[in-house]
Amino acid sequence: MEAPRAGALARRISETTVRRLSLYLRILEEVERAGTDTISSEELAERAATTAAQVRKDLSLFGSFGKRGLGYSVLQLAAELREILGLDRSWRVALVGAGRLGSALFEYPGFRRRGFEIVAVLDADPEKLGTSWGEVPVQDIGQLEEVLRGERVDIVILAVPAEAVLDVSARVVAAGVKGILNFAPMQLRVPPDVAVKDVNMAMELEALSFALSQTSRAPTG
Amino acid sequence: MEAPRAGALARRISETTVRRLSLYLRILEEVERAGTDTISSEELAERAATTAAQVRKDLSLFGSFGKRGLGYSVLQLAAELREILGLDRSWRVALVGAGRLGSALFEYPGFRRRGFEIVAVLDADPEKLGTSWGEVPVQDIGQLEEVLRGERVDIVILAVPAEAVLDVSARVVAAGVKGILNFAPMQLRVPPDVAVKDVNMAMELEALSFALSQTSRAPTG
Repeated sequence: MEAPRAGALARRISETTVRRLSLYLRILEEVERAGTDTISSEELAERAATTAAQVRKDLSLFGSFGKRGLGYSVLQLAAELREILGLDRSWRVALVGAGRLGSALFEYPGFRRRGFEIVAVLDADPEKLGTSWGEVPVQDIGQLEEVLRGERVDIVILAVPAEAVLDVSARVVAAGVKGILNFAPMQLRVPPDVAVKDVNMAMELEALSFALSQTSRAPTG
Repeated sequence: MEAPRAGALARRISETTVRRLSLYLRILEEVERAGTDTISSEELAERAATTAAQVRKDLSLFGSFGKRGLGYSVLQLAAELREILGLDRSWRVALVGAGRLGSALFEYPGFRRRGFEIVAVLDADPEKLGTSWGEVPVQDIGQLEEVLRGERVDIVILAVPAEAVLDVSARVVAAGVKGILNFAPMQLRVPPDVAVKDVNMAMELEALSFALSQTSRAPTG
């Protein structure tokens, strides 16, 4: 459940490494907007709250970048990271669940900017069917398989209630989709060739309550 | 940015370990509802998609649990995990940002169940001020510091736009709050005694596009 469960190479690269790569890309884009051409592993590390050794190790997993003493070309490294992260193409995304969370995700500005295009929205609520979100019609979840195949969907975002997620995820997998971003508070079990990321809001808060508890229990000083 | 950045012990326990502890707790609660009294590290591992050795290692970080050959008492281990994760108390949470995402988070059923109680909602939009979410009034973000102190808030959830998050997070920290769950697509920098979890929806999707790209590029077979 920690690492995306797909791909020979993906299996060997940890989730935390992939997150750092995403973060490096964001930093490079900031630096680029500020008009800077090159960046050292030390600068990149400092902004990413990690070490220069870690930056070099992460990047060396994918080949050699940068020139000793000259740092990395910001434009070139950003392009390489986009390719590594699969962001040098667009991805067709279906959103299943047109509730409040689904609506917030649909409007999330970071998706389209990164090439994730929501091409279909599905829900079970008859009152929502026939309405449109932007230019995307809300379709009947009864038609899930047909919509996923017809729209050639690569990735499904699940924003359905916990009690619906097992059934819906099984149908998504059966329809041949290989990537699922799951917001329902339940771990999905899928075949090994399907990549899943579970975003569990309560678990995120638990990481904070854990940290705060340790602090308050630790001896002072 | 990977591990919650607070607490002497918390610094030594990785984010992935804490996530596994949260997951073990969920599994124990499921098992308990099914009426089972004990569970082996093998069973726990299988359901958590990890190894029995990992389960034993994770739990040994916090003392010794279970009896050789008898497995763990489900009730007792769940109670211990709740205590370790800081879930044996309630946490006072303020939600900053009363937009669609804030609204979805406010209604998220998993928070209250875990003792995270949203006691304050703040926003900058004059049209939202004076309305109430359940029994919680939407208050003016101009009053942020007073509300956080007056409500004795432990944790702030930031669901504000990216352009507002630096200012708002600085004010939250200045008001003495030690835990922040940030949904704005920007890494926060905070003092070392403040714990932050960044939930970046686009980065979650990037982990999927990474996995899918590696699959499609890998040789078949």
